[in-house]
Amino acid sequence: MFSSLVSRLVRALQVLPGVGPKTATRIALYLVHKDRSAGRELADALHDAVERIRECTYCRNVSEDSVCELCANPKRDTSVICVVETPGDAYAIESSGSFAGRYFVLHGHLSPIDGIGPSDLGLATLHKRVCSDSVSEVIVATGTSAEGEATAHYIASMFSDDDLKVTRIAHGVPAGGELTYTDTNTINHALRGRTPIGD
Amino acid sequence: MFSSLVSRLVRALQVLPGVGPKTATRIALYLVHKDRSAGRELADALHDAVERIRECTYCRNVSEDSVCELCANPKRDTSVICVVETPGDAYAIESSGSFAGRYFVLHGHLSPIDGIGPSDLGLATLHKRVCSDSVSEVIVATGTSAEGEATAHYIASMFSDDDLKVTRIAHGVPAGGELTYTDTNTINHALRGRTPIGD
Repeated sequence: MFSSLVSRLVRALQVLPGVGPKTATRIALYLVHKDRSAGRELADALHDAVERIRECTYCRNVSEDSVCELCANPKRDTSVICVVETPGDAYAIESSGSFAGRYFVLHGHLSPIDGIGPSDLGLATLHKRVCSDSVSEVIVATGTSAEGEATAHYIASMFSDDDLKVTRIAHGVPAGGELTYTDTNTINHALRGRTPIGD
Repeated sequence: MFSSLVSRLVRALQVLPGVGPKTATRIALYLVHKDRSAGRELADALHDAVERIRECTYCRNVSEDSVCELCANPKRDTSVICVVETPGDAYAIESSGSFAGRYFVLHGHLSPIDGIGPSDLGLATLHKRVCSDSVSEVIVATGTSAEGEATAHYIASMFSDDDLKVTRIAHGVPAGGELTYTDTNTINHALRGRTPIGD
């Protein structure tokens, strides 16, 4: 309207999750007018990331090198692999600071209806890695959707002949969550996943 | 954490209004992994806008040319100027489709405490433009803050000797707004700004 460059930026910003025309306009005017150096830094950071980010050949997570910083870190425990659906899931677990092993990112879950099979999730790579790295435990942290559960069971069956522990993360009432306001599906998981007190 | 390029992008994204570390991470992973072409287009659009956007010499709005598209449009009514505080305000009025004149953007309001005086708002430029363009009405659409009101009065006094109408946009109960839930300041404005029925 005022400038075709601003209009183009407003359109481009609307690909962001939860950003409509009004928010996009506010962000665009902020970046090109209020804080131009921040806008310049964001444009550069985004350009570099988009051009150079690829997948780690080892764990399939986002990485700028062929092996990501985490897989290349000699301090990580190589005997445990945590399998997640997305890079965001790996990021969430890593942020908790309670896991010192390595990750494996599926980029999805088994979904025959969408034509997504074991090869799309890199499960052969996972199997090869587990065998060659003397891994002792695979922690499956896929979601609780039907597809996430099916993927977890598929992975467990993949390693049933191997001398290897395959575990599933606990699903239940979140820390600080009130039972009164917890959905029935979560309560179902919490009850089925109950453990003896004192363990 | 996984990649210094992603970390840099996450930091850069946090300059956006209302975006914290979690949202920034979600957006970053979305742009570099889920929809890379959208990420590329956003980086390019932002780069071009930041490098080329400046202020229209005529109305001080954001523009890629020395005269913005709106001021250069021969179909706009040159006899009316609407004075606003920000480019976003001009955008909001323009989106309503109820104004066919031109704008003048102050980029702020008079604020002696912050050292912002008439020259910072380009009021000399506004005066020159009104005189040379045979403008018949200046509509002041500054905000209802003390500074916005003071700015409106200052602009009115600037033109008190000229044969020119200086008007103020109406402030009152918003369209569709319920009186019950309207704040007292707005009701105050609505009552003071009442007009005879039938006008």
